Amino acid sequence: MASRTSLSRIGGRDVFEKCYKFMTADNARAMGVYPFFRPLDFNNGPEAQLEGRKVIMLGSNNYLGLTTHPKVREAAKNAIDKYGTSMTGSRLVNGSMRLHNELEQKLAAYHGKEAGLVFTTGYQVNIATISALLSNKKSVAVIDKDDHASIYDGVRLGQAAGARMVRYRHNDPEALDQALSELDTSEGALVITDGVFSAQGEIANLPGIASVVKKHKARLLVDDAHALGVIGPGGRGTAAHFGVADQVDLIGGTFSKSLASIGGWLVGERKVLDYIQHFAYSFLFAASAAPPSVAAAMAALEVMQEEPERQEKLRENFTYMRNELRRLGFELGKTETAVIPIYIRDDLRTVMMWKTLLDEHSIYVNPFITPGVPPKQQVLRTSYMATHERHHLDRALEAFEKVGKKFGVIS
Amino acid sequence: MASRTSLSRIGGRDVFEKCYKFMTADNARAMGVYPFFRPLDFNNGPEAQLEGRKVIMLGSNNYLGLTTHPKVREAAKNAIDKYGTSMTGSRLVNGSMRLHNELEQKLAAYHGKEAGLVFTTGYQVNIATISALLSNKKSVAVIDKDDHASIYDGVRLGQAAGARMVRYRHNDPEALDQALSELDTSEGALVITDGVFSAQGEIANLPGIASVVKKHKARLLVDDAHALGVIGPGGRGTAAHFGVADQVDLIGGTFSKSLASIGGWLVGERKVLDYIQHFAYSFLFAASAAPPSVAAAMAALEVMQEEPERQEKLRENFTYMRNELRRLGFELGKTETAVIPIYIRDDLRTVMMWKTLLDEHSIYVNPFITPGVPPKQQVLRTSYMATHERHHLDRALEAFEKVGKKFGVIS
Repeated sequence: MASRTSLSRIGGRDVFEKCYKFMTADNARAMGVYPFFRPLDFNNGPEAQLEGRKVIMLGSNNYLGLTTHPKVREAAKNAIDKYGTSMTGSRLVNGSMRLHNELEQKLAAYHGKEAGLVFTTGYQVNIATISALLSNKKSVAVIDKDDHASIYDGVRLGQAAGARMVRYRHNDPEALDQALSELDTSEGALVITDGVFSAQGEIANLPGIASVVKKHKARLLVDDAHALGVIGPGGRGTAAHFGVADQVDLIGGTFSKSLASIGGWLVGERKVLDYIQHFAYSFLFAASAAPPSVAAAMAALEVMQEEPERQEKLRENFTYMRNELRRLGFELGKTETAVIPIYIRDDLRTVMMWKTLLDEHSIYVNPFITPGVPPKQQVLRTSYMATHERHHLDRALEAFEKVGKKFGVIS
Repeated sequence: MASRTSLSRIGGRDVFEKCYKFMTADNARAMGVYPFFRPLDFNNGPEAQLEGRKVIMLGSNNYLGLTTHPKVREAAKNAIDKYGTSMTGSRLVNGSMRLHNELEQKLAAYHGKEAGLVFTTGYQVNIATISALLSNKKSVAVIDKDDHASIYDGVRLGQAAGARMVRYRHNDPEALDQALSELDTSEGALVITDGVFSAQGEIANLPGIASVVKKHKARLLVDDAHALGVIGPGGRGTAAHFGVADQVDLIGGTFSKSLASIGGWLVGERKVLDYIQHFAYSFLFAASAAPPSVAAAMAALEVMQEEPERQEKLRENFTYMRNELRRLGFELGKTETAVIPIYIRDDLRTVMMWKTLLDEHSIYVNPFITPGVPPKQQVLRTSYMATHERHHLDRALEAFEKVGKKFGVIS
């Protein structure tokens, strides 16, 4: 019996089998080259401490450096005093507080849209919105193949309800045009694109995409997680950057980047948001964003507008780094924003460079390797903040040059 | 052309069409009987203020009343000082801090399991765990038909990857046994049940379920969102309540109930959690739980253990209410916990009773109506806290008696 048991388990009768067989992480740990889940001791913006070592942080999405801004901290603490640490309930019932509504109104006004909706995470914005809108067999998600994982999960939820997924070539309005042309006339399409692609730092061609969407009478959702606070007048993101906000039906994003908090947001027509807030499981049946998180995001949105010089400084920093890294000979792809991927295109070399940068130069970057990225797409992903000073950046450039040469990425 | 456009939209070519047609909420708002998304001005536990009116709160999941506990508030504020308001990154990369690891270790030790994992929301615990474990055609989710919505979304993600879903009759180990008997021998099953069912307050028959799961060599995941802090020695939840923790493979839950915060947790074998944290999109590609939220949950876990009288007081309160409401003649189903549903079984009457309780008696309860619940399952859902005093409960009972009689629910 014992042998039958273990045989049948090996034969696929145990959903944990794959977990026991998964050795990649343990092997990397044993070799001392495991780069993930390393805990920070503290994180002050441009500098942080990682397991006892002070580092220059080039791997944060804290673009405007607001997680430690006195006003943002103060607002979060005041909300804890007023509301406590949690609303312990869904927005639908006892989890709503005035702060949620206030932030929703401010986000809508900021984007020039009719209504806003606040979510508990940015992830839940996409899964809620997409699954609510694509809930039957006549719905099609038409997505950029490089869209964020949360968009894929939203589409998978729609697929379980019968919706279809069509992917078009990355950031290519012609490919989108073709994809929309091939839909059945009985189908309704929701086109979904990142505003700024999170891995590449590339800006979506929204004028082209929006015009194709309009031509086909489809609807357009833009995930502006990496665009808010980074591009566009007043940090309003991709649609505003191109002046096409009125051609984008829904714009969503997160609090966990420029807005220095945790949670997410969506703006658009009131009726559409009203539908989502009544039909999306991941909105209805999830506890609401906590008081300190909502207050921090609202304060960050205010500081962003009171201190426009932060966006200027951020642009100056990432432009400097893009130019200097290119000058050193690194391949950076199409980045135009605060995310600058340095293409290495090899797992081992990516990990070794990450480790050398950290251990020998105290420079923190994020290694993206397979299976997180497709083969040949391995990068050291760097990202920049308004609070980086030139000396941080120059120290990093010096390290990149040394390490890039050592590993033969640049000559 | 214009008429063709609008015709084609009505014909299903617009994914927003259903939003424009959704009038239920707007109609209820126009009639002044819309019960949802009403913002609280503040929330001190047993008392709160709803749009200017002071109410007795019988609709919160703040079971131990810890959202306003000085130690919990202080811990959240200290974390804001130390780490800022957000880590602005995924746990995988720059979003990990020592606090996450510390809380993971404490949760594992508390539950007597090998390892723990902290998530950004309770919702994401279920969608991450289930979608990671059920990722192919040989996987089957075997779930109680009354499981929480987040479990259903997790299963839907698994279904998009080819997994199957089988539902068994509510809280019935024999039905589960039958369901598991019918699986193909090549299939692996993950059985998933709420520990305490969120709508009914009923405790799952875990001894029966665990024994059936063992018999079939399946795996068992228990969602203890409404059990932690409520039942079991030291508030350890359903498995500990029955003394079967060693027979449950994975136990998960939320910070947004007894733990007075926002986020979620999972405990189990290290290898299984290690797999989930490397393969679940909703863990990998979501920003980590924010410093104040992690600190608040950790402080709440400590206070829970330092002040066991809170759990005693909670039990005393919900037992008193269950007995008194039954004595008044209300139908309460199988509740044995802090969630007490009062069955009304009719949409209009549920809404009118909710409104009368609120407007005339300043008692806040949550109305559950269709389509949120199946027909004939409409309830006024009440829930209780350790911080309710007898006078709060007696005022509520007086109101329930009057309103119950007025609407003919009791005689």
